[in-house]
Amino acid sequence: MEFIETTVSQEYKFKGRVINTRVDQILLPNGKPAEREVIEHTGGVCVGALTKEGEILLVRQFRYPHRKILLEVPAGKLEKGEDPLEGGKRELLEETGGVAVSYRDLGLMLPTPGYCGETIYMYGAKISHFTAPRPDQDEFVEPVKVPLEQAVQMCLSGEIIDAKTQVCIMKLALLLQQGVSFSGQEE
Amino acid sequence: MEFIETTVSQEYKFKGRVINTRVDQILLPNGKPAEREVIEHTGGVCVGALTKEGEILLVRQFRYPHRKILLEVPAGKLEKGEDPLEGGKRELLEETGGVAVSYRDLGLMLPTPGYCGETIYMYGAKISHFTAPRPDQDEFVEPVKVPLEQAVQMCLSGEIIDAKTQVCIMKLALLLQQGVSFSGQEE
Repeated sequence: MEFIETTVSQEYKFKGRVINTRVDQILLPNGKPAEREVIEHTGGVCVGALTKEGEILLVRQFRYPHRKILLEVPAGKLEKGEDPLEGGKRELLEETGGVAVSYRDLGLMLPTPGYCGETIYMYGAKISHFTAPRPDQDEFVEPVKVPLEQAVQMCLSGEIIDAKTQVCIMKLALLLQQGVSFSGQEE
Repeated sequence: MEFIETTVSQEYKFKGRVINTRVDQILLPNGKPAEREVIEHTGGVCVGALTKEGEILLVRQFRYPHRKILLEVPAGKLEKGEDPLEGGKRELLEETGGVAVSYRDLGLMLPTPGYCGETIYMYGAKISHFTAPRPDQDEFVEPVKVPLEQAVQMCLSGEIIDAKTQVCIMKLALLLQQGVSFSGQEE
Protein backbone atom coordinates (compact mmCIF):
# COMPACT_ATOMS: atom_id res chain seq x y z
CA MET A 1 0.00 0.00 0.00
CA GLU A 2 1.25 3.45 -0.87
CA PHE A 3 0.92 5.92 2.00
CA ILE A 4 3.05 8.91 1.16
CA GLU A 5 1.59 12.43 1.22
CA THR A 6 3.36 15.04 -0.89
CA THR A 7 3.70 18.75 -0.17
CA VAL A 8 2.25 21.23 -2.64
CA SER A 9 2.76 24.45 -0.67
CA GLN A 10 3.50 25.70 2.87
CA GLU A 11 2.23 28.83 4.61
CA TYR A 12 3.41 30.01 8.02
CA LYS A 13 0.59 31.30 10.22
CA PHE A 14 2.68 31.97 13.35
CA LYS A 15 6.37 32.05 14.24
CA GLY A 16 7.14 32.05 17.96
CA ARG A 17 9.96 31.36 20.37
CA VAL A 18 8.83 27.79 21.13
CA ILE A 19 6.69 26.78 18.16
CA ASN A 20 5.77 27.73 14.61
CA THR A 21 2.37 27.01 13.10
CA ARG A 22 2.13 26.15 9.42
CA VAL A 23 -0.63 25.11 7.04
CA ASP A 24 0.44 22.93 4.12
CA GLN A 25 -1.48 22.05 1.00
CA ILE A 26 -0.76 18.41 0.21
CA LEU A 27 -1.73 15.56 -2.07
CA LEU A 28 -3.08 12.39 -0.46
CA PRO A 29 -1.88 8.95 -1.61
CA ASN A 30 -4.93 8.82 -3.89
CA GLY A 31 -3.94 12.11 -5.52
CA LYS A 32 -6.70 14.16 -3.89
CA PRO A 33 -5.78 17.55 -2.39
CA ALA A 34 -5.93 18.05 1.38
CA GLU A 35 -4.66 20.41 4.07
CA ARG A 36 -2.34 19.66 7.02
CA GLU A 37 -1.97 21.90 10.07
CA VAL A 38 1.57 21.44 11.39
CA ILE A 39 3.36 22.61 14.54
CA GLU A 40 7.13 22.99 14.22
CA HIS A 41 9.29 22.48 17.34
CA THR A 42 13.07 22.04 17.60
CA GLY A 43 12.74 18.95 19.83
CA GLY A 44 13.13 18.04 23.45
CA VAL A 45 15.09 15.78 25.76
CA CYS A 46 14.23 14.04 29.03
CA VAL A 47 16.16 11.93 31.53
CA GLY A 48 14.93 9.06 33.70
CA ALA A 49 17.64 9.18 36.37
CA LEU A 50 17.87 6.57 39.13
CA THR A 51 19.56 7.08 42.49
CA LYS A 52 21.65 4.34 44.10
CA GLU A 53 18.59 3.65 46.29
CA GLY A 54 16.47 2.88 43.20
CA GLU A 55 14.49 6.13 43.24
CA ILE A 56 13.68 8.08 40.09
CA LEU A 57 14.21 11.83 40.08
CA LEU A 58 11.08 13.78 39.19
CA VAL A 59 10.11 17.44 39.27
CA ARG A 60 6.85 19.13 40.12
CA GLN A 61 5.98 22.03 37.88
CA PHE A 62 3.02 24.08 36.76
CA ARG A 63 1.99 23.42 33.17
CA TYR A 64 0.16 26.45 31.88
CA PRO A 65 -1.87 24.94 28.98
CA HIS A 66 -3.49 22.50 31.46
CA ARG A 67 -3.36 24.79 34.53
CA LYS A 68 -2.12 21.82 36.53
CA ILE A 69 0.94 20.96 38.58
CA LEU A 70 2.44 17.83 37.02
CA LEU A 71 5.06 15.35 38.12
CA GLU A 72 7.58 14.86 35.31
CA VAL A 73 11.05 13.60 34.55
CA PRO A 74 13.60 16.42 34.13
CA ALA A 75 13.29 17.69 30.59
CA GLY A 76 13.78 20.64 28.34
CA LYS A 77 13.72 22.05 24.88
CA LEU A 78 16.70 21.51 22.62
CA GLU A 79 18.31 24.46 20.95
CA LYS A 80 18.62 24.07 17.19
CA GLY A 81 21.54 21.71 16.53
CA GLU A 82 22.18 20.98 20.21
CA ASP A 83 23.41 17.50 21.12
CA PRO A 84 20.44 15.79 22.86
CA LEU A 85 22.56 14.06 25.53
CA GLU A 86 24.28 17.33 26.47
CA GLY A 87 20.85 18.93 26.72
CA GLY A 88 19.68 16.10 28.97
CA LYS A 89 22.68 16.49 31.29
CA ARG A 90 22.01 20.21 31.51
CA GLU A 91 18.31 19.81 32.34
CA LEU A 92 19.00 17.10 34.93
CA LEU A 93 21.54 19.32 36.67
CA GLU A 94 19.49 22.50 36.48
CA GLU A 95 16.24 20.98 37.70
CA THR A 96 17.44 18.43 40.27
CA GLY A 97 21.14 19.04 40.94
CA GLY A 98 21.76 15.43 39.92
CA VAL A 99 24.99 14.43 38.19
CA ALA A 100 24.99 11.08 36.38
CA VAL A 101 28.03 9.05 35.43
CA SER A 102 26.34 6.69 33.01
CA TYR A 103 23.67 7.29 30.44
CA ARG A 104 21.71 4.83 28.37
CA ASP A 105 19.75 5.70 25.22
CA LEU A 106 16.03 5.06 25.83
CA GLY A 107 15.06 5.86 22.25
CA LEU A 108 12.79 8.49 20.78
CA MET A 109 9.26 9.56 21.51
CA LEU A 110 7.01 11.47 19.12
CA PRO A 111 4.47 13.10 21.45
CA THR A 112 1.78 13.83 18.91
CA PRO A 113 2.91 12.94 15.39
CA GLY A 114 -0.42 13.71 13.71
CA TYR A 115 0.12 17.47 13.81
CA CYS A 116 3.41 18.19 15.60
CA GLY A 117 6.98 17.65 14.42
CA GLU A 118 8.50 17.47 17.91
CA THR A 119 10.83 14.55 18.70
CA ILE A 120 11.79 13.89 22.32
CA TYR A 121 15.13 12.15 22.98
CA MET A 122 15.00 9.96 26.10
CA TYR A 123 17.86 8.77 28.29
CA GLY A 124 18.17 6.59 31.35
CA ALA A 125 20.91 7.47 33.83
CA LYS A 126 22.42 6.47 37.15
CA ILE A 127 23.05 9.35 39.56
CA SER A 128 26.53 9.49 41.11
CA HIS A 129 26.08 12.57 43.29
CA PHE A 130 24.12 15.76 43.81
CA THR A 131 25.02 19.43 43.67
CA ALA A 132 22.60 22.30 44.27
CA PRO A 133 19.86 22.53 41.59
CA ARG A 134 20.38 25.50 39.30
CA PRO A 135 17.01 26.31 37.80
CA ASP A 136 16.81 28.88 35.04
CA GLN A 137 15.75 32.25 36.33
CA ASP A 138 11.95 32.29 36.13
CA GLU A 139 11.73 28.48 36.09
CA PHE A 140 9.79 27.11 39.06
CA VAL A 141 10.38 23.44 39.64
CA GLU A 142 10.52 21.32 42.79
CA PRO A 143 12.58 18.11 42.65
CA VAL A 144 11.26 14.95 44.31
CA LYS A 145 12.54 11.37 44.55
CA VAL A 146 10.10 8.49 44.11
CA PRO A 147 10.97 4.77 44.39
CA LEU A 148 10.79 3.39 40.84
CA GLU A 149 8.23 0.71 41.73
CA GLN A 150 5.99 3.38 43.27
CA ALA A 151 6.41 5.53 40.16
CA VAL A 152 5.29 2.58 38.01
CA GLN A 153 2.15 2.25 40.13
CA MET A 154 1.57 6.02 39.82
CA CYS A 155 1.59 5.55 36.02
CA LEU A 156 -0.77 2.57 36.17
CA SER A 157 -3.15 4.33 38.58
CA GLY A 158 -3.30 7.50 36.49
CA GLU A 159 -1.49 9.72 38.98
CA ILE A 160 1.39 10.43 36.56
CA ILE A 161 -0.08 11.62 33.27
CA ASP A 162 2.75 13.32 31.38
CA ALA A 163 3.60 11.23 28.31
CA LYS A 164 7.42 11.25 28.39
CA THR A 165 7.37 10.58 32.14
CA GLN A 166 5.13 7.53 31.72
CA VAL A 167 7.32 6.21 28.91
CA CYS A 168 10.59 6.75 30.82
CA ILE A 169 9.35 5.16 34.04
CA MET A 170 7.82 2.08 32.41
CA LYS A 171 10.80 1.63 30.06
CA LEU A 172 13.25 1.76 32.99
CA ALA A 173 11.15 -0.76 34.94
CA LEU A 174 10.84 -3.19 32.01
CA LEU A 175 14.56 -2.92 31.14
CA LEU A 176 15.55 -3.56 34.77
CA GLN A 177 13.26 -6.62 34.76
CA GLN A 178 15.22 -7.84 31.75
CA GLY A 179 18.49 -7.46 33.63
CA VAL A 180 19.72 -4.31 31.90
CA SER A 181 22.06 -2.33 34.14
CA PHE A 182 22.13 1.44 34.43
CA SER A 183 25.42 1.52 36.31
CA GLY A 184 28.50 2.81 34.57
CA GLN A 185 32.05 1.61 35.07
CA GLU A 186 32.52 4.42 37.59
CA GLU A 187 30.56 2.47 40.21
CA MET B 1 6.22 26.56 47.03
CA GLU B 2 3.77 28.55 44.97
CA PHE B 3 3.79 27.57 41.31
CA ILE B 4 0.69 29.08 39.77
CA GLU B 5 0.90 31.26 36.65
CA THR B 6 -1.95 33.69 36.05
CA THR B 7 -3.34 34.85 32.73
CA VAL B 8 -3.24 38.56 31.88
CA SER B 9 -4.41 38.39 28.26
CA GLN B 10 -4.89 35.95 25.37
CA GLU B 11 -4.45 36.52 21.66
CA TYR B 12 -5.33 34.00 18.95
CA LYS B 13 -2.74 33.77 16.17
CA PHE B 14 -4.34 30.92 14.22
CA LYS B 15 -7.64 29.04 14.28
CA GLY B 16 -7.71 25.80 12.30
CA ARG B 17 -9.69 22.60 11.99
CA VAL B 18 -7.36 20.57 14.23
CA ILE B 19 -5.56 23.15 16.36
CA ASN B 20 -5.64 26.77 17.45
CA THR B 21 -2.50 28.74 18.29
CA ARG B 22 -2.62 31.36 21.05
CA VAL B 23 -0.13 33.64 22.75
CA ASP B 24 -0.94 34.54 26.35
CA GLN B 25 0.59 37.24 28.49
CA ILE B 26 0.97 35.83 32.00
CA LEU B 27 2.40 36.54 35.42
CA LEU B 28 4.97 34.10 36.80
CA PRO B 29 4.78 32.90 40.43
CA ASN B 30 7.27 35.67 41.30
CA GLY B 31 4.99 38.32 39.77
CA LYS B 32 7.16 38.93 36.71
CA PRO B 33 5.48 39.10 33.29
CA ALA B 34 6.11 36.39 30.71
CA GLU B 35 4.62 34.98 27.53
CA ARG B 36 3.22 31.51 26.83
CA GLU B 37 2.67 30.03 23.37
CA VAL B 38 -0.25 27.60 23.60
CA ILE B 39 -1.74 25.06 21.18
CA GLU B 40 -5.41 24.28 21.72
CA HIS B 41 -6.71 20.84 20.74
CA THR B 42 -10.03 19.18 21.59
CA GLY B 43 -8.34 15.95 22.75
CA GLY B 44 -7.79 12.45 21.49
CA VAL B 45 -8.48 8.84 22.33
CA CYS B 46 -6.57 5.61 21.71
CA VAL B 47 -7.24 1.94 22.30
CA GLY B 48 -4.80 -0.84 23.15
CA ALA B 49 -6.88 -3.80 22.01
CA LEU B 50 -5.79 -7.41 22.57
CA THR B 51 -6.94 -10.39 20.54
CA LYS B 52 -7.72 -13.74 22.19
CA GLU B 53 -4.27 -14.85 20.99
CA GLY B 54 -2.58 -12.06 22.97
CA GLU B 55 -1.78 -9.83 20.01
CA ILE B 56 -2.20 -6.07 20.10
CA LEU B 57 -3.92 -4.35 17.18
CA LEU B 58 -1.78 -1.65 15.58
CA VAL B 59 -2.06 0.43 12.42
CA ARG B 60 0.58 1.66 10.03
CA GLN B 61 0.06 5.18 8.80
CA PHE B 62 1.97 8.05 7.27
CA ARG B 63 2.52 10.96 9.68
CA TYR B 64 2.99 14.09 7.66
CA PRO B 65 4.89 16.32 10.18
CA HIS B 66 7.61 13.63 10.44
CA ARG B 67 7.26 12.28 6.88
CA LYS B 68 7.43 8.78 8.34
CA ILE B 69 5.23 5.71 8.40
CA LEU B 70 4.57 4.93 12.06
CA LEU B 71 3.12 1.94 13.88
CA GLU B 72 0.44 3.15 16.31
CA VAL B 73 -2.51 1.99 18.36
CA PRO B 74 -5.87 2.90 16.77
CA ALA B 75 -6.58 6.49 17.75
CA GLY B 76 -8.40 9.61 16.74
CA LYS B 77 -9.39 13.12 17.54
CA LEU B 78 -12.38 13.69 19.79
CA GLU B 79 -15.14 15.98 18.66
CA LYS B 80 -15.94 18.70 21.16
CA GLY B 81 -18.02 17.12 23.93
CA GLU B 82 -17.73 13.59 22.54
CA ASP B 83 -17.59 10.72 25.03
CA PRO B 84 -13.98 9.42 24.90
CA LEU B 85 -14.92 5.74 25.14
CA GLU B 86 -17.43 6.06 22.27
CA GLY B 87 -14.70 7.76 20.25
CA GLY B 88 -12.31 4.93 21.04
CA LYS B 89 -14.81 2.28 19.92
CA ARG B 90 -15.37 4.19 16.66
CA GLU B 91 -11.65 4.51 15.89
CA LEU B 92 -10.96 0.85 16.71
CA LEU B 93 -13.75 -0.27 14.38
CA GLU B 94 -12.90 2.16 11.56
CA GLU B 95 -9.18 1.46 11.54
CA THR B 96 -9.01 -2.27 12.33
CA GLY B 97 -12.54 -3.71 12.10
CA GLY B 98 -12.11 -4.89 15.69
CA VAL B 99 -15.09 -5.03 18.04
CA ALA B 100 -14.31 -5.24 21.75
CA VAL B 101 -16.64 -6.49 24.45
CA SER B 102 -14.73 -5.19 27.44
CA TYR B 103 -12.91 -1.95 27.97
CA ARG B 104 -10.64 -0.87 30.79
CA ASP B 105 -9.66 2.73 31.53
CA LEU B 106 -5.88 3.11 31.05
CA GLY B 107 -5.84 6.71 32.29
CA LEU B 108 -4.87 9.93 30.61
CA MET B 109 -1.80 11.03 28.72
CA LEU B 110 -0.73 14.64 28.15
CA PRO B 111 1.50 14.40 25.07
CA THR B 112 3.33 17.68 25.47
CA PRO B 113 1.96 19.71 28.39
CA GLY B 114 4.52 22.52 28.15
CA TYR B 115 2.82 24.14 25.17
CA CYS B 116 -0.17 22.00 24.15
CA GLY B 117 -3.52 21.51 25.87
CA GLU B 118 -4.26 18.12 24.31
CA THR B 119 -5.36 15.28 26.59
CA ILE B 120 -5.42 11.72 25.21
CA TYR B 121 -7.83 9.24 26.82
CA MET B 122 -6.47 5.69 26.79
CA TYR B 123 -8.36 2.41 26.98
CA GLY B 124 -7.42 -1.23 27.05
CA ALA B 125 -9.81 -3.68 25.41
CA LYS B 126 -10.30 -7.31 24.58
CA ILE B 127 -11.41 -8.04 21.00
CA SER B 128 -14.42 -10.34 20.62
CA HIS B 129 -14.63 -10.42 16.82
CA PHE B 130 -13.77 -8.61 13.62
CA THR B 131 -15.80 -6.96 10.92
CA ALA B 132 -14.39 -5.22 7.83
CA PRO B 133 -12.38 -2.06 8.69
CA ARG B 134 -14.21 1.11 7.70
CA PRO B 135 -11.60 3.80 7.30
CA ASP B 136 -12.72 7.38 6.80
CA GLN B 137 -12.62 8.37 3.17
CA ASP B 138 -9.12 9.77 2.58
CA GLU B 139 -7.68 7.97 5.63
CA PHE B 140 -4.92 5.53 4.70
CA VAL B 141 -4.18 3.03 7.43
CA GLU B 142 -3.08 -0.59 7.36
CA PRO B 143 -3.99 -2.76 10.38
CA VAL B 144 -1.44 -5.25 11.75
CA LYS B 145 -1.44 -7.65 14.71
CA VAL B 146 1.69 -7.94 16.86
CA PRO B 147 2.13 -10.30 19.83
CA LEU B 148 2.13 -8.08 22.94
CA GLU B 149 5.54 -9.30 24.13
CA GLN B 150 7.03 -8.47 20.73
CA ALA B 151 5.40 -5.04 20.84
CA VAL B 152 7.02 -4.41 24.25
CA GLN B 153 10.42 -5.26 22.75
CA MET B 154 9.70 -2.94 19.81
CA CYS B 155 9.15 -0.13 22.34
CA LEU B 156 12.35 -0.98 24.24
CA SER B 157 14.41 -1.26 21.04
CA GLY B 158 13.16 2.05 19.68
CA GLU B 159 11.20 0.57 16.79
CA ILE B 160 7.87 1.93 18.09
CA ILE B 161 8.27 5.64 18.75
CA ASP B 162 4.76 7.09 18.95
CA ALA B 163 4.11 8.24 22.53
CA LYS B 164 0.57 6.95 23.12
CA THR B 165 1.48 3.62 21.52
CA GLN B 166 4.49 3.14 23.81
CA VAL B 167 2.38 4.05 26.86
CA CYS B 168 -0.51 1.72 25.90
CA ILE B 169 1.72 -1.26 25.13
CA MET B 170 3.85 -0.99 28.27
CA LYS B 171 0.83 -0.29 30.49
CA LEU B 172 -0.98 -3.38 29.15
CA ALA B 173 2.12 -5.53 29.69
CA LEU B 174 2.69 -4.28 33.26
CA LEU B 175 -1.01 -4.65 34.18
CA LEU B 176 -1.09 -8.21 32.80
CA GLN B 177 2.04 -8.99 34.87
CA GLN B 178 0.08 -7.81 37.91
CA GLY B 179 -2.74 -10.20 37.10
CA VAL B 180 -5.19 -7.61 35.78
CA SER B 181 -7.62 -9.19 33.33
CA PHE B 182 -8.83 -7.56 30.13
CA SER B 183 -11.56 -10.12 29.58
CA GLY B 184 -15.16 -9.09 30.04
CA GLN B 185 -17.96 -11.28 31.37
CA GLU B 186 -18.84 -12.15 27.78
CA GLU B 187 -15.93 -14.57 27.55
